[in-house]
Amino acid sequence: MSDPQTSGARGSYAKSAGFRRAVLDTALRILAERGFDATTLQLIADEVGRSKAGLLHHFGSRENLMLEIVRHRDDVNRARFPADPDGGFGASEDLVAHNATVPGLVALFAVVSALAASDTSDTDRREYFIARYERNREAFARRLAQEQQAGTIRADIDPHVAASLLIATMDGLQVQWLLDERVDMAEHLRALVDLLSP
Amino acid sequence: MSDPQTSGARGSYAKSAGFRRAVLDTALRILAERGFDATTLQLIADEVGRSKAGLLHHFGSRENLMLEIVRHRDDVNRARFPADPDGGFGASEDLVAHNATVPGLVALFAVVSALAASDTSDTDRREYFIARYERNREAFARRLAQEQQAGTIRADIDPHVAASLLIATMDGLQVQWLLDERVDMAEHLRALVDLLSP
Repeated sequence: MSDPQTSGARGSYAKSAGFRRAVLDTALRILAERGFDATTLQLIADEVGRSKAGLLHHFGSRENLMLEIVRHRDDVNRARFPADPDGGFGASEDLVAHNATVPGLVALFAVVSALAASDTSDTDRREYFIARYERNREAFARRLAQEQQAGTIRADIDPHVAASLLIATMDGLQVQWLLDERVDMAEHLRALVDLLSP
Repeated sequence: MSDPQTSGARGSYAKSAGFRRAVLDTALRILAERGFDATTLQLIADEVGRSKAGLLHHFGSRENLMLEIVRHRDDVNRARFPADPDGGFGASEDLVAHNATVPGLVALFAVVSALAASDTSDTDRREYFIARYERNREAFARRLAQEQQAGTIRADIDPHVAASLLIATMDGLQVQWLLDERVDMAEHLRALVDLLSP
């Protein structure tokens, strides 16, 4: 028989984690469906059956909820678009093509990443993005070095430099695309991968 | 003898334009010297001898003042780093090298451009950035097409695609550099220009 106190704590933890997950999934869905401007705390609170104040209390602040949504999206995307074990940049191209269908999520990322880089007072946010970019640069650099070994990426560029370029390009294209949807993110990413090809 | 009323209006316009310019120059200097987080409305107001409320009244809102600072910086940079009539991307490389000395200005640009792209409710801000990117893409595309004629840029890429890539890369590198100053923006821009070379 389980200790009721421990079981209670476990139950409450599970409940809290479940609630957190429900809020973040709901936020991603509303952002994808309605866009950045139309997604309000009130709308998310209504959908999960809580008050706006309850939501803010749970997540600490509006800014922290926004960070948690970006973090959750990163986790979801990592699971949904894993790197192809056979090499190439197909997963990135798929992710970029998917992003072009969810401007609200791209907009949230653009704002939260710019704030993380610029407003150093929120150290949690800043540290998440420092680690995120380091992780992504390392993953791309490893992949690029493998492709160089395989002869599918030109050998005369430092894979770490190429990794930063690929990530910078994808980020910068998002802003241009949000301002003008004629800027085709997938086409531009392919053009850069072509430039990187021998 | 001039009409005192007209003269008064002219004098007040000149005074107002002079004040506006003084605020924007002061804001650029404080951002460059102290960085994004430490630059407050109060600090700018103190330096120009006005109250915070007076400053907000003159510019309409904090957001609009931020937009006007970015716009003023664009004007200053355009005059300071004009495209080299002999071709090449030296002016962009000089601008990027200069940016690496003023993180506060880069941070302001990152935040305001991301907000312009994402928060469509501020149409002045959004339209300024739509026009800004169109102008920059056109200018880069013309330059790239000239370089292709001269044989210094490879002919197998659409100059408009290459223009968007160059701008996206510079924007994206700014965010990475703000998060980790080891990301050398000038080095990465040169690497992309090398990739674009025949």
